[in-house]
Amino acid sequence: MLTYSLSDTGADSLYLYLYKCIKNDILNGILPSGTKLPSKRSFAKNLGVSNITVESSYGLLQSEGYIFSLPKRGFYVSDIAFAAVPRAKDGENPKPRTAPAGCFAADTAPGGNALQDTPSAACPRTVPQSAECTALPPVFADFVTNHTTPESFPFSIWAKLLRETISQKSDELMAAPPCGGIFELRSAICAHLKQFRGMEICPEQVIVGAGTDYLYTMLILLLGRDKIYAVENPGYTKIEKVYRSHGVDCRFVGMDACGIKIEDLNAQDADIVHISPSHHYPTGIVTPVSRRYELLGWAAARPLRYIIEDDYDSEFRFAAHPMPTLQSIDAAEKVIYMNTFTKSLASTIRISYMVLPPHLLSRFYAELSFYSGTVSNFEQYTLAKFIRGGYFEKHINRMRNYYRCVRDTLLAEIGNSPLASCSKIAEESAGLHFILRINTTLPENELMARVKRQGLRISCLSEYYHIKETAAAGNAKKPGGFIHTHALVMNYSGIRREDIKEAVRRLSKCVLAGQQRPFDDT
Amino acid sequence: MLTYSLSDTGADSLYLYLYKCIKNDILNGILPSGTKLPSKRSFAKNLGVSNITVESSYGLLQSEGYIFSLPKRGFYVSDIAFAAVPRAKDGENPKPRTAPAGCFAADTAPGGNALQDTPSAACPRTVPQSAECTALPPVFADFVTNHTTPESFPFSIWAKLLRETISQKSDELMAAPPCGGIFELRSAICAHLKQFRGMEICPEQVIVGAGTDYLYTMLILLLGRDKIYAVENPGYTKIEKVYRSHGVDCRFVGMDACGIKIEDLNAQDADIVHISPSHHYPTGIVTPVSRRYELLGWAAARPLRYIIEDDYDSEFRFAAHPMPTLQSIDAAEKVIYMNTFTKSLASTIRISYMVLPPHLLSRFYAELSFYSGTVSNFEQYTLAKFIRGGYFEKHINRMRNYYRCVRDTLLAEIGNSPLASCSKIAEESAGLHFILRINTTLPENELMARVKRQGLRISCLSEYYHIKETAAAGNAKKPGGFIHTHALVMNYSGIRREDIKEAVRRLSKCVLAGQQRPFDDT
Repeated sequence: MLTYSLSDTGADSLYLYLYKCIKNDILNGILPSGTKLPSKRSFAKNLGVSNITVESSYGLLQSEGYIFSLPKRGFYVSDIAFAAVPRAKDGENPKPRTAPAGCFAADTAPGGNALQDTPSAACPRTVPQSAECTALPPVFADFVTNHTTPESFPFSIWAKLLRETISQKSDELMAAPPCGGIFELRSAICAHLKQFRGMEICPEQVIVGAGTDYLYTMLILLLGRDKIYAVENPGYTKIEKVYRSHGVDCRFVGMDACGIKIEDLNAQDADIVHISPSHHYPTGIVTPVSRRYELLGWAAARPLRYIIEDDYDSEFRFAAHPMPTLQSIDAAEKVIYMNTFTKSLASTIRISYMVLPPHLLSRFYAELSFYSGTVSNFEQYTLAKFIRGGYFEKHINRMRNYYRCVRDTLLAEIGNSPLASCSKIAEESAGLHFILRINTTLPENELMARVKRQGLRISCLSEYYHIKETAAAGNAKKPGGFIHTHALVMNYSGIRREDIKEAVRRLSKCVLAGQQRPFDDT
Repeated sequence: MLTYSLSDTGADSLYLYLYKCIKNDILNGILPSGTKLPSKRSFAKNLGVSNITVESSYGLLQSEGYIFSLPKRGFYVSDIAFAAVPRAKDGENPKPRTAPAGCFAADTAPGGNALQDTPSAACPRTVPQSAECTALPPVFADFVTNHTTPESFPFSIWAKLLRETISQKSDELMAAPPCGGIFELRSAICAHLKQFRGMEICPEQVIVGAGTDYLYTMLILLLGRDKIYAVENPGYTKIEKVYRSHGVDCRFVGMDACGIKIEDLNAQDADIVHISPSHHYPTGIVTPVSRRYELLGWAAARPLRYIIEDDYDSEFRFAAHPMPTLQSIDAAEKVIYMNTFTKSLASTIRISYMVLPPHLLSRFYAELSFYSGTVSNFEQYTLAKFIRGGYFEKHINRMRNYYRCVRDTLLAEIGNSPLASCSKIAEESAGLHFILRINTTLPENELMARVKRQGLRISCLSEYYHIKETAAAGNAKKPGGFIHTHALVMNYSGIRREDIKEAVRRLSKCVLAGQQRPFDDT
């Protein structure tokens, strides 16, 4: 039976420690999906703890989607494992899935990727990983997940504003929220965008929705399913998935050092381009003004061309003068601006918004406003108060300082480590990640396997390319100038400061296994 | 300039009274969409009130979407008017819309139905109305809108559970909600469905989403855009709109006294049928067991056929034995069950759910679980506590008693009025509305115009038919046995008990204008 030593749980309570042990084993593939967990009673007896302890751990694991229960059958590991754990070695057969019987016996669907849920950590933009499947240590530091810590969320203010909303707005709370959002929130967003991004818009142009995925869907309905949508390569794979799930033609367009390439947009015959010019993920590229005007020119060349500008982490810019948005220099109503509070405030706040150019706005109202609003009035009014009361600005400033501090500590540790002589840091002035390029004779897959064995969760740039073959074609410079192998994407928003020193030590250890040389850009 | 007498505002504060006056004029078409409202200052001066009063009224109107503002230009009436107000008389030109300049000058889009929002009242299932456009009295009683009153929502309990959630779940609140919803809520829904609907399902089968519209979208992606979707005729027009906005083939299928007609489903070559067998809106038909098995048989005849069972107001059944759901007698995994808390709890709670049969569930996870969850963890945990704590059951019981009382009062008043001798009540044992069939020589449009002039907002059955011409073809019995002209749809969930007597008096007055005769069913 599964056994853990619970003699030293550190600061954690027993149940939390047990939860972490099991979760780690699931994430590391030691407990593959479909594995039946011990019954609560026998597990408790075996571990020498109370039934309640096991029950609490299982409950938490279940609520986060790591495990699930079948009536009268017990608890099983979810398919989340497939997303987050290493695959079997080439040549080895992957472990057969123990398909739980009962409820899911009827699974005859294609794909067959049964019963998987997307828990918090892996959900937003999961990175495929490849390495061997041997026992791995628990994840010590996670440089992949963007996770907000509870300490960073102003719970007491949020709770206070929620109370105020309930006591002041009982009438309004009982009404269905309008399709585009309640006026107070749209107007607060408007004021925020004016102050922080210099954008001059009316509240009516702001359309609020439950997450960007939902708004993407609305945009597909608005702009047309018959259009050709272009997404960045490399880029978030999720955006393409949303488009493809709607059956629209979605094409990959290459990047150079200035952002998405206009000639490729033309070559792909794109109608709509979906970009993040302020801070591209994962390369960190900030599209300069010249390219921005080229993009606007591209869009202006045909009546039905549009640019979707995803400004998802613009709040966390450390440079002095953040680049103005495409929306604010768009004279021809070609830009749809998007942003989200999910990233800037907390993952739990499912509130995103888009700013429609006026002529699209009237079409939106005429054609799509029969859709009910997706965000509850409770949260809309509370968020409106949060912004209007200046709390959002304070929160952003506090988080920006915090992240800057984490970044600086991380950069300093890297600078003082053996990595300094064989690595190069890029795109560190914006967003919540940077690129660490490493010059080593180790093949990329070997490097990444070592990283994992050191208990580090890090993705590399090549994983974000649509066509993996090209991306993996050695340590060669891409035409646009970006080397994307041996380039680690260092997402530091979820890293605790006290863990940085040790994480860098472990990373250095991985690299020192091969021969290194100073980084040479030519 | 617009002027109102504010000398007798009753129990209302000045600003609320002013808000109501303006809102009424907008709803009645006296202030058509696009009308510029007086500036706050001049309006305040004219009315002899403070600027703050006008500002507050405008603010409330704006927050509900009745008016909107353009920077430096002032306030305008929204296009909501089109949905809720009478059109111009036949032969008369409709009033030209005063298109606001500025922000919307660039409106060149087709449809041209600029800047309309869908405020609470009119949003969910708006009924088109037709009558002459003359000055109309304020709406005295609204038999169209399903509106929850603030008194009926357990604010203090909700607030308490929200506080508990914030203090107990700070870790979980910071995580992104999983695509299908948090486990606690799905498990609570599961227990609720077992207790109230005798359904035996696992929590994993429950998929939570921000409103039924969102879930319909997910279902289209899951079941396929290439399928033929069938909706009920008559029925909610919105369901068809969602399907059409996704560009899928959506067909209307006729009803008889037992529900949707199987032979028409076959004739239309439908793959997916979207029905509300427990209580059809607006006819109130409850599909009997025999037809239910016929429907399951229809679905079983082809592998890709499915039934979407919308059980939207099953909580408010007054009869002793509520009909079991299709889902619970479905042995072949053909039924997708849907329900919503928006209707049973409050319009502001944007939480709906669907129950997927196991084989579809695994496809859902494999193909669509990359979509982020749409309901915030705050509300998911709070609702889970609300259900688990027994508060939902209490709320349902309280509301059922309340609605039963409203219904009984209304039926008694009708029974004691002149309506008794020329009307017939149908389908009063379920849901929150019944059908009042009136036998009069007045043409239906004349009757409905009188109703409106009496300050009553009532829709009639013929408005819910897809093909209006057939529906309006006189007072003839339809093949299925349902007479649908002169059939008023009496939605009583938004009616205050103290207004019932007067509302029935006014309705009687409308009817007495024509010649009546006792209702003859043959």
